[in-house]
Amino acid sequence: MRIGFIGLGQMGSAMAANLVRAGHAVTVWNRSPEKADALVRAGATRAGRPVDAAQGDVVMTMLADDHAVADIVFGEHGIAGAPALHVGHSTISVALADRLAADSGAGGYVSAPVFGRPPAAAAGTLFVVAAGPEAALDRCEPVLATIGQRVFRIGDTPSAANLVKLSGNFMIMAAVEAMAEAMTLAEKGGVDRRTLLEVLTGTLFDAPVYRTYGEILVEDRFRPAGFAAPLGLKDMTLVDTAATAFGTAMPLLGIVRDHLRTVIATQGPDVDWAGIALTVRDGAKLRRPPP
Amino acid sequence: MRIGFIGLGQMGSAMAANLVRAGHAVTVWNRSPEKADALVRAGATRAGRPVDAAQGDVVMTMLADDHAVADIVFGEHGIAGAPALHVGHSTISVALADRLAADSGAGGYVSAPVFGRPPAAAAGTLFVVAAGPEAALDRCEPVLATIGQRVFRIGDTPSAANLVKLSGNFMIMAAVEAMAEAMTLAEKGGVDRRTLLEVLTGTLFDAPVYRTYGEILVEDRFRPAGFAAPLGLKDMTLVDTAATAFGTAMPLLGIVRDHLRTVIATQGPDVDWAGIALTVRDGAKLRRPPP
Amino acid sequence: MRIGFIGLGQMGSAMAANLVRAGHAVTVWNRSPEKADALVRAGATRAGRPVDAAQGDVVMTMLADDHAVADIVFGEHGIAGAPALHVGHSTISVALADRLAADSGAGGYVSAPVFGRPPAAAAGTLFVVAAGPEAALDRCEPVLATIGQRVFRIGDTPSAANLVKLSGNFMIMAAVEAMAEAMTLAEKGGVDRRTLLEVLTGTLFDAPVYRTYGEILVEDRFRPAGFAAPLGLKDMTLVDTAATAFGTAMPLLGIVRDHLRTVIATQGPDVDWAGIALTVRDGAKLRRPPP
Amino acid sequence: MRIGFIGLGQMGSAMAANLVRAGHAVTVWNRSPEKADALVRAGATRAGRPVDAAQGDVVMTMLADDHAVADIVFGEHGIAGAPALHVGHSTISVALADRLAADSGAGGYVSAPVFGRPPAAAAGTLFVVAAGPEAALDRCEPVLATIGQRVFRIGDTPSAANLVKLSGNFMIMAAVEAMAEAMTLAEKGGVDRRTLLEVLTGTLFDAPVYRTYGEILVEDRFRPAGFAAPLGLKDMTLVDTAATAFGTAMPLLGIVRDHLRTVIATQGPDVDWAGIALTVRDGAKLRRPPP
Repeated sequence: MRIGFIGLGQMGSAMAANLVRAGHAVTVWNRSPEKADALVRAGATRAGRPVDAAQGDVVMTMLADDHAVADIVFGEHGIAGAPALHVGHSTISVALADRLAADSGAGGYVSAPVFGRPPAAAAGTLFVVAAGPEAALDRCEPVLATIGQRVFRIGDTPSAANLVKLSGNFMIMAAVEAMAEAMTLAEKGGVDRRTLLEVLTGTLFDAPVYRTYGEILVEDRFRPAGFAAPLGLKDMTLVDTAATAFGTAMPLLGIVRDHLRTVIATQGPDVDWAGIALTVRDGAKLRRPPP
Repeated sequence: MRIGFIGLGQMGSAMAANLVRAGHAVTVWNRSPEKADALVRAGATRAGRPVDAAQGDVVMTMLADDHAVADIVFGEHGIAGAPALHVGHSTISVALADRLAADSGAGGYVSAPVFGRPPAAAAGTLFVVAAGPEAALDRCEPVLATIGQRVFRIGDTPSAANLVKLSGNFMIMAAVEAMAEAMTLAEKGGVDRRTLLEVLTGTLFDAPVYRTYGEILVEDRFRPAGFAAPLGLKDMTLVDTAATAFGTAMPLLGIVRDHLRTVIATQGPDVDWAGIALTVRDGAKLRRPPP
Repeated sequence: MRIGFIGLGQMGSAMAANLVRAGHAVTVWNRSPEKADALVRAGATRAGRPVDAAQGDVVMTMLADDHAVADIVFGEHGIAGAPALHVGHSTISVALADRLAADSGAGGYVSAPVFGRPPAAAAGTLFVVAAGPEAALDRCEPVLATIGQRVFRIGDTPSAANLVKLSGNFMIMAAVEAMAEAMTLAEKGGVDRRTLLEVLTGTLFDAPVYRTYGEILVEDRFRPAGFAAPLGLKDMTLVDTAATAFGTAMPLLGIVRDHLRTVIATQGPDVDWAGIALTVRDGAKLRRPPP
Repeated sequence: MRIGFIGLGQMGSAMAANLVRAGHAVTVWNRSPEKADALVRAGATRAGRPVDAAQGDVVMTMLADDHAVADIVFGEHGIAGAPALHVGHSTISVALADRLAADSGAGGYVSAPVFGRPPAAAAGTLFVVAAGPEAALDRCEPVLATIGQRVFRIGDTPSAANLVKLSGNFMIMAAVEAMAEAMTLAEKGGVDRRTLLEVLTGTLFDAPVYRTYGEILVEDRFRPAGFAAPLGLKDMTLVDTAATAFGTAMPLLGIVRDHLRTVIATQGPDVDWAGIALTVRDGAKLRRPPP
């Protein structure tokens, strides 16, 4: 297929590389053009403007936030109205996804946010949550299968996929908060946090979210950030906006947003979003190992 | 081994039955004596008083709360000072476990609370978290292996096991609260809660706690209660007491305790502790299927 | 003085009427022009476009939200760059106030949000919190003295006044939440809520916020709304945005935002913002008198 | 009248001194007898045992907590069953007040907790909240009028007065939390906290609770403690127990309890309960003046 790919950060580069490797004709664009160099060497074509990457079958976008996506789509030389089907992988607001669906033009729009960190993107083992018109999903299914290990189709309203993605990120923060509180309590009561984690993951809590983030908490691996706290706070604020729009009280969301604010204020913006555990520990005056 | 078993509710009866089946000489006692009938028919001996069940190698207790345990141990005809090693399976406070350890007398004391519901108790597939002096743990290990699929030894202070058990129950409530908020948000945004659950358990949240409680939430199975909300609130209050004693702020705990209070007030005391999801939904005025 | 007044809702009309009455030459503009009729009959001049109301000494704006203010200032025929000093009374975001200060043009900009409900606006007894360059504050002081009983000058950065106004509204919601929780607890414990209120306002809590909102809670006067819950939620979201920008955890804010979402979802958008008390009561299943 | 007074801490000594000064025949008892010396020099009689202070018309108790009160009443040489009317001023649980009412014996029981700090006790300007059988209230009214500036009679169930007292203490903590969050937000946004306090107390928030605690927050006067944080936490836990018993969700209570735990953990047990403001500031990394 002729595929455009816009947004070549850590995640996007890895995803685009898999598409090149799979034999697709990939045209790439990034605001800082040098980030495309390696992909061009690997066989991709460089586009001069975003719209030039949207003349094939599909154009995929993986960008930082609502602002960046709106700019690429509706800004100068944007992809709105171009013939390619727009497949949006970015974690954006429900409202922007609704606007993209409404104003996508002839090419159509599918939301397909992903779960997974850069190593999973490189390995092609992301989880993809996709929503949009069935015919459009059928068209991009082979491409999605290339970047992910599994594709969840969840309906024909694109923004539903974004809502699920945001909910998933909230669930991660909730699990981290729960572990942070339990580990801090246990540790102040004389139980090592690794011991607690082993019991948890050995019983009812045997899931990647507890194993992965549990290790981070046990070993204090908050830097370098796998996903920086300010990005986590941005996502949680998108959840908050959806909660207001849909009329849902979410007290647990309020806690994690407050703890993200605090960890950014006290630790700086380069800390991992799992650093909310430090906020919980600080509140209990639990000593930390030296940095 | 010669084993006493005190407390023949749903959990205790199933555990004691497994001990009989494994060939141990089991002496049972229960406040309402008729609950021992089936076990006696199966080969157990009936004790006239609690202390009579504590003359063998080990006496196991599985009771409702601190009050019941303190009464069986330190009350009239109690087991304090009896020769058997006391193995306490009940979910009790850290403070009472400390007292049991201090005042256990010659027999000694081990805390061995369990994770699992009645079907797991019947199948002998409970998870056992055990703490106490190493020699005592060695002595009761074969018995624990009979009632559980896995025994976690977590140290020589018995109350540590109770703290881990309480932390685990808190983690369950935290996962339920997180799912309840996310499902309610999703549903008000047009995404079916089963769809959300499938994505969650198909990705990072592939653990029994999400599958088991997720099904309960999706299918509205809050009655009959697997574990009634007032018992959940009792346990969460034990966590709260430990949090005060150890000086740990636990805002997520505060939320689940409030939601337990509310679901008991609005739904009655017979609702399952996972019914905190109803509180979240009611706050968003999400309709429920007819009962 | 030659004064323009833009935004003739309940508050703005009353404020403008006081200016006419005080002998100023008042030019008024409102999106729905018929709202200006009474003021024109009373001696005010009708402006055809917002900018026409900004040719005198001062132009005051009292509008619903950020969007309306930005439109009046920076939109077509807007007042940006007009000669009059812009005095903004609306409850707007800190960020928009900063932008108004930066882009106000020759006339200059002062933020002067007010505390008080329509009756206080009519009586000229509002409290005014003003911030901006000292010379500008001096110039508009007589006008502010006409609409308010007291003017607090709090510095030379206009947005500081908006931050104080937002903080004040948060403090009101916090006091209502506290009373709601205490009254519900008391009532479920057998103490009439009026009795509790009398003790509170007779001792340490003898302030208008407790007397005014306490009466509303005791008498269940949540309709018609003095200040509708969706407007309250909008303001609390402005506080939340500032909390994120300034890096401040505000858990009490999280609670009142959740309760506002719930009361809007369960009672409808026409309920008073003090209706968060209904959410607290519903959570305790406290009966309400029939409507 | 012949009055007994038991419990001669800062508050009790000042209250008893006023009774002596008013001409009553006062018999005093305290666990550490030397605390009675000054009162004896002023004309009081020293009792050898608690029960000896309960042979007159009225016996007043002002003790630290439930445990101390239960001991004085039901312990060895306790006042249960003595002829004097027991007037309890201590801040105790609703449950203990109910037990005192049920088991008070012939003398009868009235709950009469007070609002006010030691200086108000010395000046006889406490606020007294009294509940009990009407005849009993009539009998002790003159005594209560001696120690307080105003007596609120709130019904015939003694524990109702304790519930109101606990609710009042909760309201104080709620006001402190609200100010702490608003001041921290304002200060991080460039507004001095004194400025914010002046606007608040100059407008809707003109009450002792804001003026008194607002000054403490503005001037960082958290030591020596007027009321130590652990005592505040003890009271808030009594509120929490009542909230569970009466089935009331109190999220704001949860916040202040967590902040009390944190301030005790981070600042030590000698900090004032208003020190929860330090927890809020620490979470925003707001610098404090040097100690």
